[in-house]
Amino acid sequence: MRLPRWFSFVFPLCALAVHGAEYRSTTPRVDSVAPGIWRIHFGNPELFTPTHFRSAPMDTAGLEKMPFSRPMPLDQAQISCRISDRGCSVLLPMTPGESIYGLGLNTELFDMTQTAKGQTGRRLFLKPTDSPENDLGESHAPVPFFVSSDGYGIFVDTARFASFYTGDVTPVGRGSKTMLVDVPAAKGLDVYVFAGPTMLDAVERYNLFSGGGVVPPLWGLGVQYRGYGKFGADESLALAAHLRAERIPCDVWGVEPGWQSASYSCSFVWDTSRFPDPHGFLAKMRDMGYRLNFWEHAFTSPSSPMYRELQPWSGNYLVWGGLVPDFATPQARTIFLRQNDVSLFNRQVEAVKLDECDYQPESPTPWSFPLATAFPSGLDGEQMHSLFGVLYQQTMLEPYREKGLRTWGLVRNSQALAAPLPYVLYSDSYDHRSYVRGLVNEGFGGLLWTPEVRDAASIEDLYRRIETVVFSSDAVINSWFIKNPAWDQVDRDKNNRGELMPERETVTDTVRKLLQLRMSFIPYLYTAFNEYHSTGKPPIRALVLDWPDDPNVREIDDEFMFGDSVLVAPMFAGQSSRNVYLPAGDWFDFWTHAKFGGGTTVEVTNGITQIPLFVRSGTLLPLAEPVEHIKPDTCFNITVNIVGNKPGDFTLYEDDGTTSDYAQGGQNQIQLHANGASHSVLGSGDYHGPPRFKITAWKQF
Amino acid sequence: MRLPRWFSFVFPLCALAVHGAEYRSTTPRVDSVAPGIWRIHFGNPELFTPTHFRSAPMDTAGLEKMPFSRPMPLDQAQISCRISDRGCSVLLPMTPGESIYGLGLNTELFDMTQTAKGQTGRRLFLKPTDSPENDLGESHAPVPFFVSSDGYGIFVDTARFASFYTGDVTPVGRGSKTMLVDVPAAKGLDVYVFAGPTMLDAVERYNLFSGGGVVPPLWGLGVQYRGYGKFGADESLALAAHLRAERIPCDVWGVEPGWQSASYSCSFVWDTSRFPDPHGFLAKMRDMGYRLNFWEHAFTSPSSPMYRELQPWSGNYLVWGGLVPDFATPQARTIFLRQNDVSLFNRQVEAVKLDECDYQPESPTPWSFPLATAFPSGLDGEQMHSLFGVLYQQTMLEPYREKGLRTWGLVRNSQALAAPLPYVLYSDSYDHRSYVRGLVNEGFGGLLWTPEVRDAASIEDLYRRIETVVFSSDAVINSWFIKNPAWDQVDRDKNNRGELMPERETVTDTVRKLLQLRMSFIPYLYTAFNEYHSTGKPPIRALVLDWPDDPNVREIDDEFMFGDSVLVAPMFAGQSSRNVYLPAGDWFDFWTHAKFGGGTTVEVTNGITQIPLFVRSGTLLPLAEPVEHIKPDTCFNITVNIVGNKPGDFTLYEDDGTTSDYAQGGQNQIQLHANGASHSVLGSGDYHGPPRFKITAWKQF
Repeated sequence: MRLPRWFSFVFPLCALAVHGAEYRSTTPRVDSVAPGIWRIHFGNPELFTPTHFRSAPMDTAGLEKMPFSRPMPLDQAQISCRISDRGCSVLLPMTPGESIYGLGLNTELFDMTQTAKGQTGRRLFLKPTDSPENDLGESHAPVPFFVSSDGYGIFVDTARFASFYTGDVTPVGRGSKTMLVDVPAAKGLDVYVFAGPTMLDAVERYNLFSGGGVVPPLWGLGVQYRGYGKFGADESLALAAHLRAERIPCDVWGVEPGWQSASYSCSFVWDTSRFPDPHGFLAKMRDMGYRLNFWEHAFTSPSSPMYRELQPWSGNYLVWGGLVPDFATPQARTIFLRQNDVSLFNRQVEAVKLDECDYQPESPTPWSFPLATAFPSGLDGEQMHSLFGVLYQQTMLEPYREKGLRTWGLVRNSQALAAPLPYVLYSDSYDHRSYVRGLVNEGFGGLLWTPEVRDAASIEDLYRRIETVVFSSDAVINSWFIKNPAWDQVDRDKNNRGELMPERETVTDTVRKLLQLRMSFIPYLYTAFNEYHSTGKPPIRALVLDWPDDPNVREIDDEFMFGDSVLVAPMFAGQSSRNVYLPAGDWFDFWTHAKFGGGTTVEVTNGITQIPLFVRSGTLLPLAEPVEHIKPDTCFNITVNIVGNKPGDFTLYEDDGTTSDYAQGGQNQIQLHANGASHSVLGSGDYHGPPRFKITAWKQF
Repeated sequence: MRLPRWFSFVFPLCALAVHGAEYRSTTPRVDSVAPGIWRIHFGNPELFTPTHFRSAPMDTAGLEKMPFSRPMPLDQAQISCRISDRGCSVLLPMTPGESIYGLGLNTELFDMTQTAKGQTGRRLFLKPTDSPENDLGESHAPVPFFVSSDGYGIFVDTARFASFYTGDVTPVGRGSKTMLVDVPAAKGLDVYVFAGPTMLDAVERYNLFSGGGVVPPLWGLGVQYRGYGKFGADESLALAAHLRAERIPCDVWGVEPGWQSASYSCSFVWDTSRFPDPHGFLAKMRDMGYRLNFWEHAFTSPSSPMYRELQPWSGNYLVWGGLVPDFATPQARTIFLRQNDVSLFNRQVEAVKLDECDYQPESPTPWSFPLATAFPSGLDGEQMHSLFGVLYQQTMLEPYREKGLRTWGLVRNSQALAAPLPYVLYSDSYDHRSYVRGLVNEGFGGLLWTPEVRDAASIEDLYRRIETVVFSSDAVINSWFIKNPAWDQVDRDKNNRGELMPERETVTDTVRKLLQLRMSFIPYLYTAFNEYHSTGKPPIRALVLDWPDDPNVREIDDEFMFGDSVLVAPMFAGQSSRNVYLPAGDWFDFWTHAKFGGGTTVEVTNGITQIPLFVRSGTLLPLAEPVEHIKPDTCFNITVNIVGNKPGDFTLYEDDGTTSDYAQGGQNQIQLHANGASHSVLGSGDYHGPPRFKITAWKQF
C-alpha cells in the first residue's frame, strides 16, 4: 500500500502517528499582518487566491487607528490543518452557543449555525450561483469570511469552492464543538484571523484589510431606472422624458441588452437599427440630466470585432458560442477594454451592469464554462468562477480609475475583499423576504446589494418592494422586461400589452414620494459610505453587529441598520402588522415621532406607503429636501433633526461627488453639533467647489 | 506569474502552445487489456480507484469467448486529457444524435443526453446520494461507466466525484460534439474502452471485466419479508407463522434495527430485552423454513465491544457518535467481522442488509462523514464515499466466501465493477415510476435493484408495486415501519394502529397470487443470472440493449426485459391503460396469449392484478409450479411453454442452490429443446444432489 500523502499541521509542534498512518506535523507560520490581524500559513497555498487579485492595497493607516488587543482571539492549540491529495481541511475551535455570520451574500440563511433543529450547525457550500434562494450557502457572492458571536473574524484565502461545516462535525477524540473548512485542490492555505473585541470590529478590520469601503459618486445614490430590454433610442428617450415630466426622481438610466448588435453572446457593438445615432442618444439623455449605465456580460460573440484578438487570451470553452475572456491576464483586459472604450467608455458612459458572471453549480444543464476550463493565466474554471465577478469588476473599473472618476455599477457575482469595488450585487431571483435578508447579510462581508424592483404581485407589493430598495445601496427600478414603469401597471403581461392600471396616477404620486424619501436620505447615506471607506463600518448591517451582547438580536434577519441612526424593518405585501425588536436605547418612530424604549418588541401597523423606520435617540439625522436628480452643482437643503437628548455629532462629507479627488483631500468634513438650543456647523477640508449642503433648519424630532 | 501546472495529453503526439500558456503534451499509453478492451493511461492516476479494490478478477476466459473486432471504437485523435492542480479532465468524441446510457443507478434519467429541450446534453454529477430522485445524475450507485448508442462503452477508473458533460460543452476550436469528463484531485486517469459492436456487447465486456455477474442462492430469488423495525422475537415469530398460515410465499425474513442494543450508531450486539434467546429465535425461524437477513450499518457505537480496538482503523470523524471503519484496511475488516461473527455469522445468518452507506452530497446538514475525512488506509472521505458500499459489501462477503456459501444481501450504496457482488440496491425514496426506471437502468452498469414495497396509497398502488418488485432481482416486502403486512392495511398510520382493511382477505389472496407468479419465474430467472455470470448479459435490462438499431426504443424507460423472453411494462396506480412498445419479432400477451406483431405500440388495459407482460415468440419459457419457499431439496415442477414457432433452446441450471460449488463444476446444464411436437431434455454437468427440476408438461403458449 502506497504511503498516504497527508500532512497534518497542528499547533503546537508535535509528531503524530494517527490511525495507523504516518502524518507529518509541523508548526505553521503565524504572521502579524496588521494590528489585530494575523495570518496562519499552512503548507504551500495556491497562487491564485483573493489576496493575489486584491482590488486595493490594505488600508494600513485605517487599521492602525483601531483599538487593538494583543493575543490572537482563537486558541492556537485548537487550530489544525490537514493536507491530502484532494485538498486541504482546517479545523477551528467553536464554543457552545456560538453563532456564525457571513460567508457571502446569503439570502436564505442568517446565523449559519442554525438549522431546522436549532443551533446544531450546517454545511455551507461556497459556490457562486445564479439561483441563490437555496439553503446551501451558495450565493451570488460566496465570501470565505465569517464573523463569530465570540467576537472574531476568519478569512480563508481561497478561490476554491470551499465548504464550511459550522459545528456539525465530530472529529474523533475532540470533545469540543468544531468548525471544519474543506478546501478542494489546495495544498496549503492562508487563514487570516481578525480580532474583535466585537464582531463589528472584526468586520471593520476585514474591510480595511480589503482596502476600505467604496465611496460612491453622489449620483450613484440616486434612483436608477432601467428601461425595457428591447427599447431603442426613441422609446428610451420618450420614457426618460416621461419620468422627468412625472417628476419621478431618477439619476441613472439603465440600457439593457438591446443596445448591442448581439447579446447572447455579446458583440459590444451598438445595434444601429435600434440606436442609429449613439452620440445623439447619449447627448439627449444627458440634456435631461441622466447618467447612463449599460448592460453587458463578458462572453464575447464571434461577431465582435475583438473576437479573433481575444481568443488566445480566453478560456478553452465557449459560453453561448462566445469566448470567456481571461481577465486575469493584462492582454485580455486590454483587448476587452479597447472594444468597450470604443462603444462605451470613450462616450463617457458613467457605469456598467455586468451580468451573467455567476454560475450554476448544481444545474444539470449549466450555461457557463465548465470547472475544468483552462485559462491562459493558469487559472482553472473553478478558480475563475470564484473570481470572475471580481476580475470583471476590476477590468471595467480601469477606465474610470485612469480618468480619476468614480462609477457605480451593478454586478451579479463577487467574492472576497470586494469592499473597495463600486459595484452593487443584484439577482434574477425575486422573493422579497429573501431580498431583505440580503440587505441584512451584506454588511458581514464587504458586499453591497440591491433588492431591485421589477414587476409586482399587487400595488401593495410594489410599494413594499420600493420601500425596501429605497433603503439599499442602489435604488434600482429594473424594468428590463416591462415596457412601462411598474407604477403604471404592476402586472408584467398587462404592462407589455399596454393595459395600464386605472389607479396609475395615485400610484405614481405614491411612488414619487417613496423615491423622494430616498433622495432626502442621500447626504446621510453618503456619510455612511465615507465612514465605510475610512473605518470599514458597513453602511447597511445586521442589528447583531451593533448590539453584539443582546441575545435577542442574534437571529433577527428582517431588520437592519441603515447608517448609524436608522433602523429599518421592511414589511411585505399581505402584512397588516409586524413585530419590530428595538435594541437598547430609546427610539423614535420616523413617521409619528412616537418614542419607544429599547430592549422591547413593538408591533407596528404601518400603512402600505410607510415602511417602519425607527431613529435612534441621541443622534442627529440630517435629511435633505429631495431633488429629482443630482447635478454637478446640486446643493442639498438640509434639515437637521435632533433626535432625543444630548445627540452625538454628525459629519457631512462635501466633495465634487464624481471624481476621486475626495481621497486626496478634496473633501470637506462638516461637523454638525447640537447642545440644547445651541447648534454649530464646523467645516474642514480642501474641497473648494460648489457647496453641497445648506443647513436650512434644526428641528427637534 | 507562476507557470500553470497543466499538462495536455493529446492523441497523436503533438506539442501545443495553447492560449498563451505552456502545456506539456505527451502520448498516453494504450494497452490492450483483453480482447475488445483497451486502457488509455493518462498521467499519474491515483492509487485508490475501483480497479484497485476489485471484488473479483477479470473473467478473461469469458472475454475471450466473445466476438471481437480489432480497432478501438473511438477515434484516438479526438481523445485528450488535461491535468491541472484541481484534477483531470478528459475530452471524448461524440456524434450528432448519439445517446448515452448508464453512469449509475439513475432513477430519474435514462438517455443521459436528453434534456427538457431535447437531446442537447447535460451535466451528470457522479455522487452517491441517499435521495436519488433528482435529475443531477446522483444515485445510490454512481458508476463511472457508460455505453453509447454508437456501440461502445467507457469506464473511467476513479473513486472521485466525477462529472460527465454529455455533449453540452463547447471547447474552443472543436467543432464536433464532445463529452467532457471532469475528475477532481486526480493527476492522471485510466480510461477503459469497451468494444461493441452493440451496446450489449460493451456491457457484457464491462461485466466480465468486473469478474462476471453474480449468481444468487436459489432462495435469494424467493420473496423477502422484512418485519417491523422494533419487533422482538415474539412478534417476529408470530408474524412469520402467520405468513406461513396464510401461505404467502416467503424465503427470507428480514430483521430490522431492533435486534441490536444500539443502532444509531450500531452496537452489533443483540438486544436481549427484545431477543432474550437469539439461538432459540433463529432455530424457530428456521423450523418454519425462513432464511434470515439482518439489518445493520457500519457506524460503530461506543457501546460496541469492538469500539476501542476499531478506533485506530477508522476515519477521523464520527457519524452518529460512531466510528467509521476503514474497510480498506485488513485490520478494520478483521475487527469488524469478528464482532459480526459473534452476533451473526457464527449463527449461520444467511444475509445482511447494509444500510446508510451512501451520502448526502448536497445536504446542508449531512449526517455522514465529511469529504475531508482521513482514513488510515490513505483514502480520503470523497474516495471512501465512492467506495464505501463496495468495500462494506466485500467485507461482509468474506465469511460466506470462507464457508463456500452464497448470500443475497441488500445494500444502499455501490459503485463500479459491482457485477460479482451478491447485493441488491434499495432506497428510502418511494416513487413507483422512478423505481421502474431503476430497473430499466440497472443493467447498464453491473447493478441490481429492488423496487421494494412498503406501504401504499391504495390497494391498487399496492398491487402495482408488488407486480413491479416481482420482476426484480429481489422481491422485497419491507415492512420496517408497519407492524402488519401492507395487504392487511396499506395505510401506514392505520396499519400501526391495528385498523385493518375490511378487504384484507381478498387482498391477501391477490398478493399471494402475485408472489406465486414470482415463484413460478424462479427457474427462468436463475438461468438469466447464470448467464449473467458466464456472459455478462444483465438479467434485467433496457430494451435499447436488445434492439440497438430500433430508434423507437432509444427513450423507452418504462419497459424492460426480464431475462431473454419476457418484456415487462409495469403499470402505476391510477392508470387504466398504457402504451407498450413491442420491438421487432412477434410477441404473446402473457395473460391472454394473444399475439402481436413487433415494431408497434399497443395500448393495454390490464386489470390491477395483471402486470403487462409480453413473451417473445420463438422462445421456450419454463414456468414452475409455485412453492412457498425453497428448501434444500425443493424440486420445481416445470411447464415448458413453447412460445411461437421454431423456439430456441433454453438452458436450466441445476445445482445445490446455496454453495459456490456451481462455479467449480457442481452444476448441471439442462437443455430444453422443442421442434414441433418433439421435445428433448439434455443434461450435462457434475451436480449430483437432489434434482431441482421435473419437466411436467410441454405446452404451446
